[in-house]
Amino acid sequence: MSQRTKIKALLESEQTGIDVTVKGWVRAFRQNRFIALNDGSTNNNIQIVVDFENTDPALLKRITFGAAISVSGELIPSLGQGQKFEVIAKEIEILGDCDPEEFPLQPKRQTLEFLREKAHLRFRTNTFGAIFRVRNSLAFAVHLFFQERGFVYLHTPIITASDAEGAGETFHVTNFDLANPPKTENGEIDFKEDFFGKATNLTVSGQLEGELGAMALSDIYTFGPTFRAENSNTTRHLAEFWMIEPEVAFNNLDDNMDLAEDMLKYVIKYALDKNAEDIEFLTQRLLEEEKQKPQQERSEMSLLEKLQFCLDNDFERLTYTEAIEILKESTPNKKKKFQYPVEGWGTDLQSEHERYLVEKHFKKPVILTDYPKEIKAFYMRQNDDGQTVRAMDILFPGIGEIVGGSQREERLEKLEQRMDEMGIPKDELWWYLDTRRFGACPHAGFGLGFERLVLFVTGMGNIRDVIPFPRYPKNAEF
Amino acid sequence: MSQRTKIKALLESEQTGIDVTVKGWVRAFRQNRFIALNDGSTNNNIQIVVDFENTDPALLKRITFGAAISVSGELIPSLGQGQKFEVIAKEIEILGDCDPEEFPLQPKRQTLEFLREKAHLRFRTNTFGAIFRVRNSLAFAVHLFFQERGFVYLHTPIITASDAEGAGETFHVTNFDLANPPKTENGEIDFKEDFFGKATNLTVSGQLEGELGAMALSDIYTFGPTFRAENSNTTRHLAEFWMIEPEVAFNNLDDNMDLAEDMLKYVIKYALDKNAEDIEFLTQRLLEEEKQKPQQERSEMSLLEKLQFCLDNDFERLTYTEAIEILKESTPNKKKKFQYPVEGWGTDLQSEHERYLVEKHFKKPVILTDYPKEIKAFYMRQNDDGQTVRAMDILFPGIGEIVGGSQREERLEKLEQRMDEMGIPKDELWWYLDTRRFGACPHAGFGLGFERLVLFVTGMGNIRDVIPFPRYPKNAEF
Repeated sequence: MSQRTKIKALLESEQTGIDVTVKGWVRAFRQNRFIALNDGSTNNNIQIVVDFENTDPALLKRITFGAAISVSGELIPSLGQGQKFEVIAKEIEILGDCDPEEFPLQPKRQTLEFLREKAHLRFRTNTFGAIFRVRNSLAFAVHLFFQERGFVYLHTPIITASDAEGAGETFHVTNFDLANPPKTENGEIDFKEDFFGKATNLTVSGQLEGELGAMALSDIYTFGPTFRAENSNTTRHLAEFWMIEPEVAFNNLDDNMDLAEDMLKYVIKYALDKNAEDIEFLTQRLLEEEKQKPQQERSEMSLLEKLQFCLDNDFERLTYTEAIEILKESTPNKKKKFQYPVEGWGTDLQSEHERYLVEKHFKKPVILTDYPKEIKAFYMRQNDDGQTVRAMDILFPGIGEIVGGSQREERLEKLEQRMDEMGIPKDELWWYLDTRRFGACPHAGFGLGFERLVLFVTGMGNIRDVIPFPRYPKNAEF
Repeated sequence: MSQRTKIKALLESEQTGIDVTVKGWVRAFRQNRFIALNDGSTNNNIQIVVDFENTDPALLKRITFGAAISVSGELIPSLGQGQKFEVIAKEIEILGDCDPEEFPLQPKRQTLEFLREKAHLRFRTNTFGAIFRVRNSLAFAVHLFFQERGFVYLHTPIITASDAEGAGETFHVTNFDLANPPKTENGEIDFKEDFFGKATNLTVSGQLEGELGAMALSDIYTFGPTFRAENSNTTRHLAEFWMIEPEVAFNNLDDNMDLAEDMLKYVIKYALDKNAEDIEFLTQRLLEEEKQKPQQERSEMSLLEKLQFCLDNDFERLTYTEAIEILKESTPNKKKKFQYPVEGWGTDLQSEHERYLVEKHFKKPVILTDYPKEIKAFYMRQNDDGQTVRAMDILFPGIGEIVGGSQREERLEKLEQRMDEMGIPKDELWWYLDTRRFGACPHAGFGLGFERLVLFVTGMGNIRDVIPFPRYPKNAEF
């Protein structure tokens, strides 16, 4: 048989009456006559019309849900509803059988929980096909956005010897025999004998190394996996997730906010343009899902409306201090509806507070800036008030924090002082401090949790459904 | 001061007589008058002309090699050689001082070995600026190539519970206290208590999970970090490196070779177009380096010629068996010049043999196919001869193997038989075998070691110089 044509291309064809070969997986076979075939290039199936009277019944029997087949035939305009074209089969070949009795997937709606157990097969459903095509577009749009602006994509290390941020628990990386690691005379683990000659772990962020790149190449970004060994069994956390971390020399916090807002709008717009059908499908899926919920828990906007709304509105920018004032005076706070009452300046915001600001008060994405230094990392630039740092968090409806960033502390003395106060070991970070010793400059950057972005754009509710093979406590299957 | 203009944009400006602001790091300051300023957007510097008679001497003293400065002034046509434009400074601000006595870098040629110790600062040299801009272009070109062809970028897991390929030693990932891991009653490590509830390690390849995606989305690729805990202290091996692994449903080995050859040519051409100046610089660098070598060790072609040559020629395709015949009959084999004499069919090829085929016999890239099954992985499709598998290796001049791939064994029975023969645990790979149970189809894919590609395109000799922060035995610095 000749080379196949992808179904997406077939459905956009400008010619009919031509011979084509199409290959894919059977999604349905009705009346021994109509095959709905899908190859993952689009959520739409191509209809294959079978001349069952002149086809071997043994072959017909093998055209089952999930089977892989190859079809050659003529592409013609379809008379059926909802499809422009169909293929009149001249030759059908079974590439791989699929016993309906054994196949874990069924041609009906199956729960997301069930499909998570079958993550190796869930790509074959409409929902997950759409999710992973949208994820693909978002990932590529991130690259496009930064490349168009002359940024250098930098691969920062995955295995590191420093838990620089103190950002939480890390995974150890070792090639010791865990049952019998070498020990020093004092009975301690002898990391000098380990592969890297010291204790190593999986990175929690590429930022510090990213700054090294920015201090020479000006504009860099990372896009790679990061890890947290936190025992969080939530719909918002993964042990392994992908992060995008741009870092820009000479940028201040305003530049940083502009860059982040531009980037978010760019990638959302790209997905809306490129994956219109997938997002339409996911919008309908969410509507169906929300029908099961009580009225007051349903979204005010559909997925599509929510995405469009993000593009059409400037993100609201205000300081943490201003946000605290709004929250203190808010109706839910006064009526004691918040689980964590907002009493005064200095406390970290909870998800319920962020959602109130975004979903109720401003009704659009919000950028909060200038947080108390006590609740932020050591490398954030200190404001003159002695209390706050030039941090920014971007809060999205339904998601909460999607971006966290800051202008960085470029002044060596201030940086070292803060590291001392917070107990960050300066000798381990000698290379980071070097950038403040030799030709330092103001600079800023941020981190975008990629899966949270995918959650937002697909309207899914559980982060385990937007990464192919999620890693979380007690799960590293596949 | 206003927003900066990047130096690359300034040097491509079509206007002069305009006021500009430029920021970067001082590469040279001659005669108290001419600053060479670089911001990493290009290897070229912009010349800043300082009116030293009307500038504060204290400020002039701070314009040292490595200092970060901001300059506002007028862009004018330059009378100097080798530059089209220069900036007449009206205002100079020191953003960050750089004490020449302390700064590890010096304004002269420094050895690659020395710069590897200073990997946090080496981005500021011409050589590493060029390398990492070229690396960036190659990475983006990989994405462009696959996106243009409708592939889905799939993030396969980094932490896995299977060393599926048996590809070599893996790094353990754990959140146990290594000094005191929990044990079972039998005194064995109790991995049920570990974060993921089982023993886990860092992935050596995303291929098997990639196949799961291809069996639904048809065309996928991965681009992510992979790991080998091999104690190899060579110029060709890293413990952490990036791999690109496309996997395509319905492709056979010929399609696979076409895809790989097209991809390599596409990304090399992209870098040649986008990074002409960087590659020109690296070509000169290599020429200088090779002047230190005896005549017979120097390359016959310059870097630029070698890259162009790859674009202009079809890769030579032949079977392993044919290659063995050529090698057996070759002059170096007959004259016993090979360290490992080629005596017969079945042995793995050594680097010297691959280089002979590529550099001496065919004088172009070579694709070898149909290797003996004993020296290849379990998942490669078995040929009818019972001896060989549908493998392919692409061999490049100076690099050796740059791509390894195969058509995959889609027949369940054959696959299981080979797994049994090779001692691959079938129960651990139940999900992989499921793709052969339910709608299997012919498919093929390959892996490209990204750093080997960067080595080839930059003409560098040591793989540690083409990744920002290399990981190898006893080294995880930065």
